Amino acid sequence: MSFFTSNIEFVLVETSHPGNIGAAARAMKTMGLNQLRLVTPKVYPSAEATARAAGADDILAGASVTDSIRSAIGESTLVLGTTARERSEKWPIHAPRAAAQLVMKEIENGGKVSILFGRERSGLDNQELASCHQLIRIPVNPDYSSLNLAAAVQVIAYELRLISQSENLQDTDKESELASMGDQDALLEQLDHVMQETGYLELDHPGLVRFHLRRLLLRAVPTSKEIKMLHGILRAIRKHL
Amino acid sequence: MSFFTSNIEFVLVETSHPGNIGAAARAMKTMGLNQLRLVTPKVYPSAEATARAAGADDILAGASVTDSIRSAIGESTLVLGTTARERSEKWPIHAPRAAAQLVMKEIENGGKVSILFGRERSGLDNQELASCHQLIRIPVNPDYSSLNLAAAVQVIAYELRLISQSENLQDTDKESELASMGDQDALLEQLDHVMQETGYLELDHPGLVRFHLRRLLLRAVPTSKEIKMLHGILRAIRKHL
Repeated sequence: MSFFTSNIEFVLVETSHPGNIGAAARAMKTMGLNQLRLVTPKVYPSAEATARAAGADDILAGASVTDSIRSAIGESTLVLGTTARERSEKWPIHAPRAAAQLVMKEIENGGKVSILFGRERSGLDNQELASCHQLIRIPVNPDYSSLNLAAAVQVIAYELRLISQSENLQDTDKESELASMGDQDALLEQLDHVMQETGYLELDHPGLVRFHLRRLLLRAVPTSKEIKMLHGILRAIRKHL
Repeated sequence: MSFFTSNIEFVLVETSHPGNIGAAARAMKTMGLNQLRLVTPKVYPSAEATARAAGADDILAGASVTDSIRSAIGESTLVLGTTARERSEKWPIHAPRAAAQLVMKEIENGGKVSILFGRERSGLDNQELASCHQLIRIPVNPDYSSLNLAAAVQVIAYELRLISQSENLQDTDKESELASMGDQDALLEQLDHVMQETGYLELDHPGLVRFHLRRLLLRAVPTSKEIKMLHGILRAIRKHL
């Protein structure tokens, strides 16, 4: 996962409360992220930041402090800004889950991503938003949208962790091409023979069983290697029936 | 959404830091949740809790304080406990997304749900876990799993908000609750027996076969109904071997 962690950078812009910086570092580390940049924090370094970071003080120690967004995001190929606004005419706004997909795609293509988090009270200003390619908005209660800065960091980092793990799962898919529908049909047919030979299909509603098995297989999006393995298992079973 | 908000209760058990109680209230309110219960908090009420709650002090004002879990969850039909442990033999453990589906289903069926959050350092004790029907585990960095209490509240509340807003749940998910990791493990174990009894595992690299089968199953995100069906098929096979 190191290509993942080292190519996503969280940038906190003019944070007022050092406690939030510490809590953000902790939130990032729990989700396996470690690249933190601070743009002109109000109070930093700070004992409060270190205290709230708990065991994530290594993230703080490694955090670079700069006085401009430009230098913070200099190497990034994709810059996303977090916003509380519902609409924007100038930038596409994504929910965290969709944004996480964008981020993964960018990194898989060799890019580097910065995610900007604005001031506690006022967020990112227009000039800072102008540095962003796209925006992320966490869906909140319209009657109370006051998400804490570290809580926003936690939610985005959580979605990134989920997607980085599911992408890792899909790495297996890349090893081998996906199974064709014909391959899947042949497997289900072989399984059908086994279910008939063992009497399983008499017990239940055969049509429903076949339907559920097909759906399960479709959802798994198996590779042809995996289908071959399942065929092998069924062949071994049929030899012993 | 009022049926949603009034039937989900977050229960904080023996919280040490009042700041975390305030931050948890704020996290809940940003996601449209408002039912908070506190079981023997160490320091409460507290100016720090109120300060960290920001504008969510109404959640604090409405929070009931009790001295036992039993009275806190008395009216609930489904009790979920949050845990940092990877495995449990006694309770099914769900990821937040799957747990949110469980919660919605329970509420749609007229139930009431309590979600328990344990102490900052030690979580829920065994007796408290015994009050839970199922557990929730937020996927974290295995090298640093120290999620802040309010951050955990934020992640769970976020998933609940997403699911309460998405009307188009995948139809497969609606049919049946998702299988727990324990259910999946038990199925893979049964399959392992079949592969041993038929000699399949001798043919290949057993570790690799098990690895691929587990990944395939994980990717399919099976429901417990589907797992039961697969168990039935394997049982029928084993009878005939």
